[in-house]
Amino acid sequence: MAQASAAQALAAQAIAGDNPAHAARLRIRSGAHRGHTVGVAPGYVQANLAIMPAADAQAFQTFCQLNPKPCPMLAIGAPGDPLLPTLGADLDLRTDLSGYRVFRNGEEIDVTDDITKYWRDDLVSFPLGCSLSFEEALTQDGIALRHFERDELVAMYVTNIDTVPAGPFGGKLVVSMRPLKPADAIRAIQITSRFPNVHGAPIHIGLPRDIGVEDLEKPAFGGAPPRIQADEIPVFWACGVTPQVAIAQAKPSFCITHLPGHMLITDVKNTTLAIM
Amino acid sequence: MAQASAAQALAAQAIAGDNPAHAARLRIRSGAHRGHTVGVAPGYVQANLAIMPAADAQAFQTFCQLNPKPCPMLAIGAPGDPLLPTLGADLDLRTDLSGYRVFRNGEEIDVTDDITKYWRDDLVSFPLGCSLSFEEALTQDGIALRHFERDELVAMYVTNIDTVPAGPFGGKLVVSMRPLKPADAIRAIQITSRFPNVHGAPIHIGLPRDIGVEDLEKPAFGGAPPRIQADEIPVFWACGVTPQVAIAQAKPSFCITHLPGHMLITDVKNTTLAIM
Repeated sequence: MAQASAAQALAAQAIAGDNPAHAARLRIRSGAHRGHTVGVAPGYVQANLAIMPAADAQAFQTFCQLNPKPCPMLAIGAPGDPLLPTLGADLDLRTDLSGYRVFRNGEEIDVTDDITKYWRDDLVSFPLGCSLSFEEALTQDGIALRHFERDELVAMYVTNIDTVPAGPFGGKLVVSMRPLKPADAIRAIQITSRFPNVHGAPIHIGLPRDIGVEDLEKPAFGGAPPRIQADEIPVFWACGVTPQVAIAQAKPSFCITHLPGHMLITDVKNTTLAIM
Repeated sequence: MAQASAAQALAAQAIAGDNPAHAARLRIRSGAHRGHTVGVAPGYVQANLAIMPAADAQAFQTFCQLNPKPCPMLAIGAPGDPLLPTLGADLDLRTDLSGYRVFRNGEEIDVTDDITKYWRDDLVSFPLGCSLSFEEALTQDGIALRHFERDELVAMYVTNIDTVPAGPFGGKLVVSMRPLKPADAIRAIQITSRFPNVHGAPIHIGLPRDIGVEDLEKPAFGGAPPRIQADEIPVFWACGVTPQVAIAQAKPSFCITHLPGHMLITDVKNTTLAIM
């Protein structure tokens, strides 16, 4: 009885799109929303996405399990199944992102907003945790984030730290960096420690050269220099670009990823990811 | 029945001195142990101690409550009662420390190992958490502490941060500093966040001048310069010397404190202070 009621409630919700995350997916699916998803459905987990054939996926799954800080797995799709019911009612990976990149043997062959024609019955999907979730927890705690204030992408760097390789997947750890005042840095470590599924605690703080970052003002990804201030220290988190670099290096036979900034919006609330 | 059994067990334990902390107190009480208590009864909470008449104590108690990071209260003695049963079976504050300082109107009038003759029926005792507890948690996690390796006191500094005053008690926050490699600093923040009753998380990290510490190599208390290395950052915790400075400033009519390094050894295990 209780199960039937829950299923009915879920079905009713699916029809109505009555949570902001589901409503956003319906808008994306219908083409009403285009462009990036930053700020869409606040409070709900947005995920990085990687999809590849089962033959390639096993090694990638191992890579994620061996490198949980840059590659936290939020779920694993069943082979051939484009739905992810644990992350969202009616969630369809073929249509519910506003941008995808499609690769064959490591080469980008398409950028699109619908991958229905590319879907195969051996594709396995990997939604991976994303820093947007912990950034929300930081800003809700009153910690100002430079890149939000400037409407820029967070600064990212390639470190000298090797990931643990699995099959063809490997390469250096990529980190994101947020300049913070010391008291905010301490608080940010406490807060993000509660969110291991979205990169968790920082991996480094204060001394960029120790992890191979020679010039903070020249990020490898993310564009604008962070212009760190004299009363700030750099705080480095493992970054979801790490698996993208690993994929680019591995060149799987076939692969689909989200287009940067065009994330998978889930029905999971960010707050529920806190482990304590 | 259960209560009677517990009381019997406690009494039996008190007689036998059958935990290392109680045994250590018995050795101190009998004069068999003299000198500092660092390394005595490992695993058990050692506390700073302040004792003063009820007339002075109310403002001091408020000071501690308003400044919980430097002055975490582990218990509060009942006026006139030299026992602290919540911290130890048979614990007697008059005889169980290996060194005390006695003050009248802010002036030291005695240094002794027995305060029985000074005890009064209006004295209120304040055992305050001490960094030895969290340092044990850090070393058990494999984090090397410079001052332990060198058998020196931890470096301490007076900051430019005002405590919240209460009556005559106030003054600047005193901090202890431990130089740590960045990854250890992050881990140390996580670990000490679990121990709010023994100073908790650091209050500052990385930029000494921001809290008024001009030269790390010249500690105000604690002696030897820490000789911070290029691959380390300074991590600052609120320090139990803060209430001592507040007492020196307030000059209560009468006051007894522990002699530095000669701590109150309790039956409470350090691990039980962890809040999660």
